Amino acid sequence: MPFALLVADPFAGTLALMALVWLVAKLGGEIALRLRLPAVAGELCAGLLLAVCARMVPGFPDLAKSGAAETLANLGVIVLMFAVGLESTVPQMMSVGLPSLRVAVIGVVVPMIAGFGGAWLLLPAGTPIVVDLFIGACLCATSIGISAQVLREQGAASSFEGRVIVGAAVIDDVLGLLVLVGVSGAVTALGSATGLPWGSMGRTLGMAFLFLGSALTLGRWAIPHLFHLANRFRSEQLLLPLGLAFAFLLAWLGSLAGLATIVGAYAAGLILEPAHVHLLEQREAQRLEDLVHPLVTTFAPVFFVLMGAKVDPASLVAPDTLLFAALLALLGVLGKYVSGLGAGRGFRTSVVGWGMVPRGEVGLIFVAAGSTLMVDGRALLSLEVQAGVVGALLLTTVAGPMGLGWVLRRSAPKS
Amino acid sequence: MPFALLVADPFAGTLALMALVWLVAKLGGEIALRLRLPAVAGELCAGLLLAVCARMVPGFPDLAKSGAAETLANLGVIVLMFAVGLESTVPQMMSVGLPSLRVAVIGVVVPMIAGFGGAWLLLPAGTPIVVDLFIGACLCATSIGISAQVLREQGAASSFEGRVIVGAAVIDDVLGLLVLVGVSGAVTALGSATGLPWGSMGRTLGMAFLFLGSALTLGRWAIPHLFHLANRFRSEQLLLPLGLAFAFLLAWLGSLAGLATIVGAYAAGLILEPAHVHLLEQREAQRLEDLVHPLVTTFAPVFFVLMGAKVDPASLVAPDTLLFAALLALLGVLGKYVSGLGAGRGFRTSVVGWGMVPRGEVGLIFVAAGSTLMVDGRALLSLEVQAGVVGALLLTTVAGPMGLGWVLRRSAPKS
Repeated sequence: MPFALLVADPFAGTLALMALVWLVAKLGGEIALRLRLPAVAGELCAGLLLAVCARMVPGFPDLAKSGAAETLANLGVIVLMFAVGLESTVPQMMSVGLPSLRVAVIGVVVPMIAGFGGAWLLLPAGTPIVVDLFIGACLCATSIGISAQVLREQGAASSFEGRVIVGAAVIDDVLGLLVLVGVSGAVTALGSATGLPWGSMGRTLGMAFLFLGSALTLGRWAIPHLFHLANRFRSEQLLLPLGLAFAFLLAWLGSLAGLATIVGAYAAGLILEPAHVHLLEQREAQRLEDLVHPLVTTFAPVFFVLMGAKVDPASLVAPDTLLFAALLALLGVLGKYVSGLGAGRGFRTSVVGWGMVPRGEVGLIFVAAGSTLMVDGRALLSLEVQAGVVGALLLTTVAGPMGLGWVLRRSAPKS
Repeated sequence: MPFALLVADPFAGTLALMALVWLVAKLGGEIALRLRLPAVAGELCAGLLLAVCARMVPGFPDLAKSGAAETLANLGVIVLMFAVGLESTVPQMMSVGLPSLRVAVIGVVVPMIAGFGGAWLLLPAGTPIVVDLFIGACLCATSIGISAQVLREQGAASSFEGRVIVGAAVIDDVLGLLVLVGVSGAVTALGSATGLPWGSMGRTLGMAFLFLGSALTLGRWAIPHLFHLANRFRSEQLLLPLGLAFAFLLAWLGSLAGLATIVGAYAAGLILEPAHVHLLEQREAQRLEDLVHPLVTTFAPVFFVLMGAKVDPASLVAPDTLLFAALLALLGVLGKYVSGLGAGRGFRTSVVGWGMVPRGEVGLIFVAAGSTLMVDGRALLSLEVQAGVVGALLLTTVAGPMGLGWVLRRSAPKS
């Protein structure tokens, strides 16, 4: 029937796939809740199940290869971090600046050393030391999306510990960037006499601080004026598109400065305060947070299911790889858990520690970067090592929300 | 700086593009409102302006080539039609079944004859008669998204005329499918002795009716049971993902039956009634319509801006093409306008007529289909004819919301 093909909408397959994602996300979340786990852990596992189906069942769609799902998942984590930012204000975050800095530094240094030591012990003798160094680097970046979702589920996103976790994750992103530039530079320097790329590292740090600094000063100064102008428009339904446009612009600018897009989206949420948008909120009789909420409900599950679906199930079944991954994951969990001590006395350090545990796309980007670096004409990370590190990242990603959900339920806030 | 490239998020460019789309959509909408035109007309023109910029300004991003924008635009028109469906119920639509059928049939037959006659008069002698026939076919399909948005803007989506327009558009989609299969079959039959593809046409019609029939019977029967089951879940935030999953599944099933995805999404909205979802709505303390609304606000403008951006500005400047397009558009507008008479006495026939005027993606799909069909070894539609037809479709697309907005403001509802 060639005529039917002429009018068939190529987007139809995507629609079926998204419906499937929502259904498995809600089913997985429900099962997780009944097991007293956070819903997001169930969504991650639902994605892993889809990945297994895509490999076992002929004709089953492969979510990990859908460009549209990738777009919607990216949108999901951006609006999620924007929503988390909206729940806090700049002064609130400034008040947790020092504990966040301590947590971030411990949470980068300790897992890096632990990962380096673990890889040095576990990998066969003769492995170049930069490989151990790179594996340590892969363990140092927290993926905040998952913890943010758990904190929101439990209503703890604006608690002291919740703010420390998010603040530490932002600093963590800057430090992770430095580590990647530094370690990649060390690998490149192996073949030459240039040493560590101090200039490049300094420039990276400068750009990141420049972005964060101008967002928090210039952005905060400009926003009331812009929304005051928008309030003179006669159009309806301005609040949400303008709020999102601001978040997306900052996410883009942040990425130009080398930061993850979610850092910019979070900064946008932080800057936008009720006082800036209250005229538009009054006119539309709705709060910006309530308007963003359905977007988070719709697209954040796509992000978590896709994250699970991107895991290659085959990489998790080889016993050697699995053992390597499990030991590395254990070191990674412990390394981040002790970072919770940086939050200081009187606070739920275990909540902060568990909140820093999940690794995700940042670690995966490190692995991808490592697979393109060459040492003595061979790839820095062999396929087995890559599978092991990815497995370790996945284990922390599932363990993180489980641990965080457990300690949040167990302990009441002390602030 | 190769290290910065390693961590740069490929999604960042999309974020900047989407922010741009929202800003120009709101600015275009505001200008249109001040000129007493519907906002959607301004959004279409804003898209056209982006297309001009993409061609004139070096390095300016081309929205029409962004896969992510395409995904979000498709999502936008799907949730828009779902939201329009939610505003009506099945009995309400049944009560306008006969007027809708009359409007749809007149609105397919008259523009088809007018377009055929116009092309026969305007195109050079010696043009195969199937070309004229195909041009007529291109004018017969209404694109309901634009009128739906204008009706929503003016709060007239569930008025008698609003329901007739949407009902006629659904029937129109079935008829348009038949016309495409019939005319394409006639072209193919030119070279053989098979005649019109009656079997294929019958099968197409049967599939479309089977889908609509089972959605309105089986779907309506199953939905209360499914939502009753969902209500036993302990998870929160079920209403929106499940509602969307249902809409997307029906859109996909409809496309398997050969219908546009928006018909399925509309049917899903029609079937879902407050009675089915009220337990979940009570639990989440929000109505499904209110939850879908922010999605429409966010993504429908992307659809309209992208629709404008897909127009090739070059095709609109050749005087001959422009004249051909303008005359064809005039015939197309008149042909759809008279279809309003099918609504019957006592109703605002001009509202219905103008509501049927906009053509859009369906007409463009026809043109694309025509450009792949061959007659005597040459493409059925030459590049000039294609540009002219596309120009005509665009003119109806901009004229439609202008006319509809004007008659809606001028006349109070008579029902």
